Amino acid sequence: MHILVTNDDGVSAPGLLALAQALRPLGKVSVVAPDRNWSASGHVKTLHRPLRAKEVTLADGTPALASDGAPSDCVALALLGLVEKVDVVVSGINPNANIGHDVTYSGTVTAAMEAAIWGVPGVAVSLDSPEDHQGALDVRDNWDYGPAARVAREVVERVVRFGLPKDTLLNVNVPYLKYEEIRGVQVTRQGLRVYRDALVRREDPQGRPYYWIGGEAPTGVPEEGTDFGALKAGYVSVTPLHLDLTSYEALRSLREWW
Amino acid sequence: MHILVTNDDGVSAPGLLALAQALRPLGKVSVVAPDRNWSASGHVKTLHRPLRAKEVTLADGTPALASDGAPSDCVALALLGLVEKVDVVVSGINPNANIGHDVTYSGTVTAAMEAAIWGVPGVAVSLDSPEDHQGALDVRDNWDYGPAARVAREVVERVVRFGLPKDTLLNVNVPYLKYEEIRGVQVTRQGLRVYRDALVRREDPQGRPYYWIGGEAPTGVPEEGTDFGALKAGYVSVTPLHLDLTSYEALRSLREWW
Repeated sequence: MHILVTNDDGVSAPGLLALAQALRPLGKVSVVAPDRNWSASGHVKTLHRPLRAKEVTLADGTPALASDGAPSDCVALALLGLVEKVDVVVSGINPNANIGHDVTYSGTVTAAMEAAIWGVPGVAVSLDSPEDHQGALDVRDNWDYGPAARVAREVVERVVRFGLPKDTLLNVNVPYLKYEEIRGVQVTRQGLRVYRDALVRREDPQGRPYYWIGGEAPTGVPEEGTDFGALKAGYVSVTPLHLDLTSYEALRSLREWW
Repeated sequence: MHILVTNDDGVSAPGLLALAQALRPLGKVSVVAPDRNWSASGHVKTLHRPLRAKEVTLADGTPALASDGAPSDCVALALLGLVEKVDVVVSGINPNANIGHDVTYSGTVTAAMEAAIWGVPGVAVSLDSPEDHQGALDVRDNWDYGPAARVAREVVERVVRFGLPKDTLLNVNVPYLKYEEIRGVQVTRQGLRVYRDALVRREDPQGRPYYWIGGEAPTGVPEEGTDFGALKAGYVSVTPLHLDLTSYEALRSLREWW
């Protein structure tokens, strides 16, 4: 069993280390991860420039490759032969949940998407922010990734045992609780994210305008059966995602347009 | 009727100009587009740095805003208030089809996705490459975008008249034919892309390795009812996409895992 671990926060992120350590009992773990943070970077394929892959070591001495590509590039490099044949790709642990429409932006999720495109099972793992840490990004290196790492191992064990359907990946979100406090696992559908972005206009010292996409942190609709609903009820959310974005519902009505 | 036009090839691309000109009879057209090429850039939300929006003019004198953000950032900036209220977002015209799994990477498509997230109808328009131009990227500025621009107007007219379901966008691909030679419109499902990427390892003048994601241009499976199938049969392909990536098929079997 050869497991590729990557993330979108960069090779030095503590969530990556916790994940690599937790998965080691399942088989050989290789780490190929970005050399910098790629959060909200989307699904990238870098064709216009060459990519580097530098040998580094994680904080516990684990050897890893740090690439100047995006998370999905790291997966492509690995699956194209930078490392030996990969059986499963696990991405994370991302600090903050990836729910609702986040899955289209998330570097963590798109790394698992890239695996699915190559026919390799992909699992994205994210840890919801603690209630009192909302938006406090500077402290997330001090979060406890242990429970989420243990959950990740339990999910990956099942992926190895049962396999995943073609073109399917898993989006796993873990509530910020002690392992014993987690109420269980819910298999969920993608819920709704409510973004509260706002445009902030400022002027630079030369009087020229610039803009920040700012506003409050996004929230979710805690509906039962959804990713966010499970998290808010204290459950791990496991959402199977696929790469067919066709709206089959809309197909029929659109045909009447012509 | 206020139409926002953007793309992922940059504000100076001829496909953008052709699109803006074709849509002008339908209402007011505003252009907010990236100041450089963002192909295969995925769905990006730039929160970690400020964005600029510089006033420029297109080749025909049309005023436009060029942003240093990604295509999806351009849409977010515009919908957050950089321009007046937008009724529909049209992205393109991309040189080369966006079919199959391309839709998860494509900056053209993710611009329309961003519109859908904001509750605004989004349309992505791409022009398939001429048979004899496969992979010849340097000549695509000389392609004839006229027929695809006319098709785009016909699609946007219908979007305005009939509306789009919530959370839905249209992915439009036009075959490289004269307008009269196009056989009609097919409403299609997302088909399969076959990527033929290969890892190319080279050494820099200092003897250090670097890597290209290379290989042959991707192809598709020309199955009936799919995007690629329609294109290859000489039809315009209109695929309704939605933002719910849940694999409802996999939900049931996964529940047996726990």
